[in-house]
Amino acid sequence: MCVPGCAEALHAALSRRNFFKGAGTAAAAFAATSVAPVAPAEAASRRFTKVVDLTHTMSPAFPTFFGVPGIELEKKFDIKKDGFNLNWWKIIEHAGTHLDAPIHFSENGATVEKIGADQLVVPLAVIDVAAKAAQNADYQLSQADLAAWEKRHGKLPQGCCVAMHSGWGRYVTDAAKFTGKDSAGTFHFPGFHPDAVAWLLKERRVAGLAVDTLSLDYGASKDFKAHTQWLPAGRWGIENAANLDKVPAAGATLVVGVAKVKDATGGPARLLALV
Amino acid sequence: MCVPGCAEALHAALSRRNFFKGAGTAAAAFAATSVAPVAPAEAASRRFTKVVDLTHTMSPAFPTFFGVPGIELEKKFDIKKDGFNLNWWKIIEHAGTHLDAPIHFSENGATVEKIGADQLVVPLAVIDVAAKAAQNADYQLSQADLAAWEKRHGKLPQGCCVAMHSGWGRYVTDAAKFTGKDSAGTFHFPGFHPDAVAWLLKERRVAGLAVDTLSLDYGASKDFKAHTQWLPAGRWGIENAANLDKVPAAGATLVVGVAKVKDATGGPARLLALV
Repeated sequence: MCVPGCAEALHAALSRRNFFKGAGTAAAAFAATSVAPVAPAEAASRRFTKVVDLTHTMSPAFPTFFGVPGIELEKKFDIKKDGFNLNWWKIIEHAGTHLDAPIHFSENGATVEKIGADQLVVPLAVIDVAAKAAQNADYQLSQADLAAWEKRHGKLPQGCCVAMHSGWGRYVTDAAKFTGKDSAGTFHFPGFHPDAVAWLLKERRVAGLAVDTLSLDYGASKDFKAHTQWLPAGRWGIENAANLDKVPAAGATLVVGVAKVKDATGGPARLLALV
Repeated sequence: MCVPGCAEALHAALSRRNFFKGAGTAAAAFAATSVAPVAPAEAASRRFTKVVDLTHTMSPAFPTFFGVPGIELEKKFDIKKDGFNLNWWKIIEHAGTHLDAPIHFSENGATVEKIGADQLVVPLAVIDVAAKAAQNADYQLSQADLAAWEKRHGKLPQGCCVAMHSGWGRYVTDAAKFTGKDSAGTFHFPGFHPDAVAWLLKERRVAGLAVDTLSLDYGASKDFKAHTQWLPAGRWGIENAANLDKVPAAGATLVVGVAKVKDATGGPARLLALV
């Protein structure tokens, strides 16, 4: 069922990703000590007056990590012939605006359907690193960036999602810019610095991370240490978030409308911010 | 890319569905006069303290309209070999807990990505017809059922979702019971009566309908008149909703986390009720 060019691309990706083997072992070791899901905040009343869509429209043209279409639609029924319209899709679990489940980088982590609904409606904290990323496509969101957010807005709320706003969302229609792929095949886009991830795991109780780029790790990462720390610890991640400049840095609620599929390691997610 | 048995099933379905051609013509005519999306209610502050998951877990075993698996997963990367886990999916747009977009039954209706985010976070009104449906699998939710709800809870809120709770959600692990398919191949499960749909279109401003069965129309419908009235009028539908007995009849907010896919006629939706 591979799309044209897919087999070759996957083979190339596998070859490039031998480094993953070591990371995988580390992740497996981590999984053995993985923590329970982050308890949601106390059941305080939450309030909102408007909805902001943090989701990109998915199409075969949307840039993907593997460089092959992340979705293909096949029209099986047409209204003129059949009285109704209906497509079948072929999709990569990790393409477009989507969720990474703990199992994506662990042997025994939670698959998507096991993430509780109360883990999917959480306070949203947006860390704006767009000015720094505009100067440096390899920028990694640091502990200092988190500290600056806390200085202004208070401690990161329990059970929240920490989202990196790098400004990359505006490049999704330009795959070369969005991926930043150079002549050696290395990606260049911002992500979370592994030290910031380690600090969040140790010092705060955060449910998920989100980025407006292709990966929690910055594009040039060779060891995927944001992924290999975060997901095996029972947390989720979101990639390719949109419109993070349209929501406040603090105070919004994020709804992660991820497709609920048995055994999935991730999946398309409708992200809606309640402001 | 058809799954085993699929081609035959689709062929059979097509043959059975010649009646759709007339309905399609009616739908096309309707589309020409289709109304604008229902304006959301005034931007009043909405409040909630807990989240209820109204989504069934999707798997190849989930009953579908076509009788073939609605999803298939293919594992393309494995953590032991590759350092991470990742699947590709093949799915039917209209399987599991999912949304019907206006285009599903119209020539020019909105595709999924064109439904505004403010149409996807709406007041939820649950009409309980479980006792009647338990006595009659062909039960159709009537205008009298809507009137009874309004007598108790007041007028249906502007821009709401009207959900039929028939009790069918508890049968999803038993395809024979859930579909009610008889020896002649006719389905038997509850749905919306076309007269109730017509009344809602004329007298109320409702954004969507939801059912806990396979179809907005009852299983034995021959003309799909709930679909052919509702969707071409610029409204959406939800099928296979779960846990409608776990939310109040009035007062909750429904979040429709439908995958945002270009040109889609529907798609998997994470339904979360904010109570």
